[in-house]
Amino acid sequence: MDTAVLTIETGRGRGPFDITAEVARFVTGRGDGLLNVFVPHATAGIAIIETGAGSDEDLMDAIDEILPRDDRRYRHRHGSPGHGADHVMPGFVAPSTVVPVVDGRLALGTWQSIVLVDPNRDNAVRHVRLSFLTG
Amino acid sequence: MDTAVLTIETGRGRGPFDITAEVARFVTGRGDGLLNVFVPHATAGIAIIETGAGSDEDLMDAIDEILPRDDRRYRHRHGSPGHGADHVMPGFVAPSTVVPVVDGRLALGTWQSIVLVDPNRDNAVRHVRLSFLTG
Amino acid sequence: MDTAVLTIETGRGRGPFDITAEVARFVTGRGDGLLNVFVPHATAGIAIIETGAGSDEDLMDAIDEILPRDDRRYRHRHGSPGHGADHVMPGFVAPSTVVPVVDGRLALGTWQSIVLVDPNRDNAVRHVRLSFLTG
Repeated sequence: MDTAVLTIETGRGRGPFDITAEVARFVTGRGDGLLNVFVPHATAGIAIIETGAGSDEDLMDAIDEILPRDDRRYRHRHGSPGHGADHVMPGFVAPSTVVPVVDGRLALGTWQSIVLVDPNRDNAVRHVRLSFLTG
Repeated sequence: MDTAVLTIETGRGRGPFDITAEVARFVTGRGDGLLNVFVPHATAGIAIIETGAGSDEDLMDAIDEILPRDDRRYRHRHGSPGHGADHVMPGFVAPSTVVPVVDGRLALGTWQSIVLVDPNRDNAVRHVRLSFLTG
Repeated sequence: MDTAVLTIETGRGRGPFDITAEVARFVTGRGDGLLNVFVPHATAGIAIIETGAGSDEDLMDAIDEILPRDDRRYRHRHGSPGHGADHVMPGFVAPSTVVPVVDGRLALGTWQSIVLVDPNRDNAVRHVRLSFLTG
């Protein structure tokens, strides 16, 4: 297995952050296999959506509607506002996905991008582990 | 890795479409490994649920409740009604899953089926990529 | 591929049940690879969240809010109260996830645990299949 950890500068934003280019670079030249994209943080997730046409912000709005950022709703509520919601999000937007790789290319559809969803503004840097298995 | 693309005739329906039989056929005789089921479309997802007892329609109702099909709510709202919601759905019902395969059989539970969730009526044909890795 | 089935005693509780220790034990000494965690039940899911600080209960509350346990809302409504909701849950909290393993250890973040989500009180015992592929 080939594995590496990407460092994503998320600054003070909430994302989603499109990481498709970095992920594509990692699998270039590796042939056929399965790529796992995994974010080792308890308040972040990985999604595969269209970016650049508004759906990235629409996803964040939907997350906020499903998991309102009123901390009185959550048992886990220390830290900055919304922290309780952020810790529930990975139950729905999971921190792990798998993308097939064919001939060194991500076999994504035309409109699919891989994004890091990070609803928390507190972390300016996030990590994403890429792991490629061939067979 | 063995990989193939299924063509699923979804007609004008929204699904979920049970694709378990096609997927089972693909892994027959392949021994032990992990199977990735991946839909390369930005408005579709893959789920594993019971089918045929109403939960398939219940899932679609729940998706519509969580992501109302009123396009004024979404930045991404060109196209037919509900298109904005359809583009957010894969954030929650992801386009990728992995199923263990033991001795050429999907190691699903008795009541589990693999379904293609396609909330959009616009596409009469969808593709699903199956990728099997053994070790 | 190395595969095994864990038996989890869930008693009459709804979870989430932290299974990280059992999963970690399974991969110890196995080197690098991808681990699939799969629950072969149609009313359960697998999530990766922080446990022990309230987010486990917060996740269950969020599931109950998104999928209310009023069976009149569901076509599939035989069995005990909430059964209709339980069958929709795996559409959102999927029964399958993949965790990278590096040098025989789960490459989880500090605050991440693997949990079995079982909203149904009816089943006192649940199974989880672990499948490890190296390459």
